[in-house]
Amino acid sequence: MIMDTHELIQSLQEQNDHKIVMLVADGLGGLPMKPGGLTELEVAKTPNLDELAKIGVSGMSIPIKPGITPGSGPGHLGLFGYEPLKFIIGRGALEAAGIGFALGPDDVAVRCNFCTVDDAGNITDRRAGRIPSEESAEVVNILKNINIDGVELFVEPVKEHRFVVVFRAKGLADNVADTDPQRTGVPPLDPVPHDTESKRTAGIAKEFFTQAKKLLAGQPKANCLTMRGFARRPHMPSYEELYGLNAACIAVYPMYKGLASLVGMKLVGEPKTLSEEIDTLEKAWNDYNFFFVHFKYTDSRGEDGDFDAKAKMIEEFDAIIPRVMALKPACLVVTGDHSTPAKMASHSFHPVPTLIVSDLARTDDCAVFGETAANHGGLGHFEAMYLMPLAMAHAGRLGKFGA
Amino acid sequence: MIMDTHELIQSLQEQNDHKIVMLVADGLGGLPMKPGGLTELEVAKTPNLDELAKIGVSGMSIPIKPGITPGSGPGHLGLFGYEPLKFIIGRGALEAAGIGFALGPDDVAVRCNFCTVDDAGNITDRRAGRIPSEESAEVVNILKNINIDGVELFVEPVKEHRFVVVFRAKGLADNVADTDPQRTGVPPLDPVPHDTESKRTAGIAKEFFTQAKKLLAGQPKANCLTMRGFARRPHMPSYEELYGLNAACIAVYPMYKGLASLVGMKLVGEPKTLSEEIDTLEKAWNDYNFFFVHFKYTDSRGEDGDFDAKAKMIEEFDAIIPRVMALKPACLVVTGDHSTPAKMASHSFHPVPTLIVSDLARTDDCAVFGETAANHGGLGHFEAMYLMPLAMAHAGRLGKFGA
Repeated sequence: MIMDTHELIQSLQEQNDHKIVMLVADGLGGLPMKPGGLTELEVAKTPNLDELAKIGVSGMSIPIKPGITPGSGPGHLGLFGYEPLKFIIGRGALEAAGIGFALGPDDVAVRCNFCTVDDAGNITDRRAGRIPSEESAEVVNILKNINIDGVELFVEPVKEHRFVVVFRAKGLADNVADTDPQRTGVPPLDPVPHDTESKRTAGIAKEFFTQAKKLLAGQPKANCLTMRGFARRPHMPSYEELYGLNAACIAVYPMYKGLASLVGMKLVGEPKTLSEEIDTLEKAWNDYNFFFVHFKYTDSRGEDGDFDAKAKMIEEFDAIIPRVMALKPACLVVTGDHSTPAKMASHSFHPVPTLIVSDLARTDDCAVFGETAANHGGLGHFEAMYLMPLAMAHAGRLGKFGA
Repeated sequence: MIMDTHELIQSLQEQNDHKIVMLVADGLGGLPMKPGGLTELEVAKTPNLDELAKIGVSGMSIPIKPGITPGSGPGHLGLFGYEPLKFIIGRGALEAAGIGFALGPDDVAVRCNFCTVDDAGNITDRRAGRIPSEESAEVVNILKNINIDGVELFVEPVKEHRFVVVFRAKGLADNVADTDPQRTGVPPLDPVPHDTESKRTAGIAKEFFTQAKKLLAGQPKANCLTMRGFARRPHMPSYEELYGLNAACIAVYPMYKGLASLVGMKLVGEPKTLSEEIDTLEKAWNDYNFFFVHFKYTDSRGEDGDFDAKAKMIEEFDAIIPRVMALKPACLVVTGDHSTPAKMASHSFHPVPTLIVSDLARTDDCAVFGETAANHGGLGHFEAMYLMPLAMAHAGRLGKFGA
């Protein structure tokens, strides 16, 4: 028998009153604009993070495996300690997470598109003219009138022609074929079950489609729909089970709240800015022992390809560090879910500079927080899924393996 | 089919007359007492190890996985090249190893406690008043009179009320329930077999218990016993099979002799001090091609929480280096099985500074042997189970994989 990392962690978790804060600056890692230059993080003035680098321990987090660029889903699952190649989030579940829908264990989520069909029922526009989000939301409201016996239904708008449907009922499986034929001139496909367990889900989807088509008959553009990515919540142990942690998520964007809720974190507050996120952290301090705090704009400005603006966001991020340290967490982790170099204007595969501050941190010779320094930090280069075990260990929350 | 590391190593092993010495300073890695300070190893004056760091290659050994603190068992299995999450040593087998009992392939080892029972047979003291070790050893001698048909029996004292029983017979399985009810006021439980294969072992245990109870009837305190952690030797290839090495263990403490015997090392000499261990090494030099030399006191002083005393032990360890180098090993490895920072007064999860000296070592920029330097050494940060393949390679004992 081989013990896997989760069994190991679960068997070693210990309770104490030590709190862990994980500050995630999305897309933190960067690239110099020209070979030999400095990255966004190295250019930014970060006196507070540099001070932590001196007393803490640095290293490089590899989000998935060397060379692999993660999306936000696998990127965050890795940070949360779930092997991203094992715990795959289906597209429907990811779409639900993306709007902050807390997917339950009895749910099957489906990504839907409004489409336009002609009188014969053949698709003429697979995206219903990309109708504006507000218009789409109104049509979504119509679909809330659908009733299916024994099934709780959720229909939620996403953006433009996209929306999410969630079927909630005991024992639903998710191995159902997409109904989008991927071309025009033909009607939507039937939701075909690929196994016996998924027959009921397919039947529910078919019934949903039939009722929806009637309700949408009068719509000028969004008069039909296609369904893709039927998916249950990935089966994974919660933070509570795995780490014995009562975890809070403090985030502005729905996607990250959704991902955090997949692992059982409580969504705390309704912050709109980084400063309000730290207000929330301060208020919730006594109620939880783990805090995931997500800062979005380092990634956004990287995606914009704006080097200077990303560096400025890193400086904003640096500025809140003293407020976090004032709470005296037993273990502070500063990291990102992936790199988003302005030079590439996209997520990238590059490892992410990471820092742990704790009384148990073995100080290394990193005097600043940045990519070049972190390369020879005491945490080495490690896969992101080991960051939570490292955080737990630095908080004195993991016992000894074997005698 | 995926080839595992052991199959790979086994298929590549080559014979030559190059000798490998692995010097293990138990609990070698440390922590600065205050963030930003130096560790025990960095404070200690180690001119000989520093000289080796200049000509050799350094790195950081992660005993199990990032964040995991190992006990001595898994810590050493890792150093010996056995994946510690795959080769789990059962509690009985570890207890046997702990007294240096060389567990064979037909053995089931059991951790036993003397306990006190009243006239009704109910336990009144689960530890028989923690009787002194000498007294306990005498009672253990009484149990050596037990005879069970077809079974070779070993009964050995451990400490106070603890002792080990080993049943030796072909085909014994070890899936038998503990008999310690974990409370007083009830009799010991029956040794219940959890599978068909373990029925015979359970029967033997029951017979042992019955005879023992009669023999112990007159004892004032140790008049009964409980049995826990039934365990066979973990099934693992020997050093001979895996590496083609004729391996010697030179150690003072029984635990490490026991662990080395699990992988088929020969226990050489009866050294009582580090200096005597090196005497033994010199004497045995022509008879083996691998030497595991274990130094205990770095760990002991770390466990005491005595920073200065641990640094002093590291200096004693450094002082014997010239004698080892005078033997001209093809490959010298200096490492520890885990860190034992005086600051924590316990084993810890921190990686262990490690050094390889060989004609094939690719010199790096480490000019001293210490944690901060080893962070950017040429061996990188690696899981301990890869240290043996690295040692074999540096001794020219591993061939090419594939054409």
